[in-house]
Amino acid sequence: MPNQATVCGRSLDDLLDVIEKFHGWKAPALVIGGFMVDWAQEWIDPGVEFDAFVETSYCLPDAVQLFTPCTFGNGWLKVLDWDKFALSLYDKKTLDGVRVWLDLEKTRSHPNIYNWYMRLVPKKSIDRDALLDSIISAGRSILSFASVHITQFYGKREKGEIIICPGCGEAYPTRQGEQCLACQGEGYYELRL
Amino acid sequence: MPNQATVCGRSLDDLLDVIEKFHGWKAPALVIGGFMVDWAQEWIDPGVEFDAFVETSYCLPDAVQLFTPCTFGNGWLKVLDWDKFALSLYDKKTLDGVRVWLDLEKTRSHPNIYNWYMRLVPKKSIDRDALLDSIISAGRSILSFASVHITQFYGKREKGEIIICPGCGEAYPTRQGEQCLACQGEGYYELRL
Repeated sequence: MPNQATVCGRSLDDLLDVIEKFHGWKAPALVIGGFMVDWAQEWIDPGVEFDAFVETSYCLPDAVQLFTPCTFGNGWLKVLDWDKFALSLYDKKTLDGVRVWLDLEKTRSHPNIYNWYMRLVPKKSIDRDALLDSIISAGRSILSFASVHITQFYGKREKGEIIICPGCGEAYPTRQGEQCLACQGEGYYELRL
Repeated sequence: MPNQATVCGRSLDDLLDVIEKFHGWKAPALVIGGFMVDWAQEWIDPGVEFDAFVETSYCLPDAVQLFTPCTFGNGWLKVLDWDKFALSLYDKKTLDGVRVWLDLEKTRSHPNIYNWYMRLVPKKSIDRDALLDSIISAGRSILSFASVHITQFYGKREKGEIIICPGCGEAYPTRQGEQCLACQGEGYYELRL
């Protein structure tokens, strides 16, 4: 039984549909992410331009990309690869914002959520439908919330100077040295002729 | 005058619309990105599951997220923060794929594209409509293409063991030490009471 009818301005069916289309499947973490973004956005005054932090690279960045204007490519979303299930939205100007996180103490009354999140059960033995039902039923009740002031890592990514690599003829940042990283042997590919 | 009517299965108007809705504005780099993904996907056999690399964190990741099944959150897109305007799509199983990049030599006949990309003109003096027209008119003619075999950085991101941080009560990876990074003083926020 869901405890709220809409999440991020969408019906639950629509939420699941949008998640599946973008992310490839109805990832439970992204459904929790929808509830997190929904709650965080309530605390941002309408009209305020906000940026986002996400504290894990698994799944959760897609919730912010789907349900806020912040994307990885536009730079308004910053991802910290910390493997913590938390996100913050904050006013770009004042740096005041809110952090929402999965509160494990609160998940203890939903053992399937707790065991799934803590990786205590093998993936194959997880009943994904039951897990999704628990997550939707739990809604915000498994989350916590705090007002925060952002102190670092914020702001625009500055683009440096670029020049043309004498090795490959492509542009690269001068700070990388006399050739681009790929021509220095750090590339991820070899050419197939 | 565009030299191709559809890009990634969409009309040009639809392409620009989708870019603006997700990314916030019609970023020229994302339009080039659309042509890059379009070309790369032609070389991937239908039905093949592919992953992606993007060699810059600026704009281009959003082209892959919008026009392929690969997103940052689902892990099928990997972003290298190299500030090179290139992407690769490759078969997850064989690691064979294609790399497409902005070929600066080929942009020389479009000085507004060259000067914009090489950051030779101040942002404010760029005529964005004219730049978009040039990019759409140029299409694939400013890109190059190579077959590649992926040699590193590929594959699934392995999730490690997580435990509960004695400082904040949130889950974090055991490899970070006896407390999570935020409790170790490396957080990006301070709490507002």
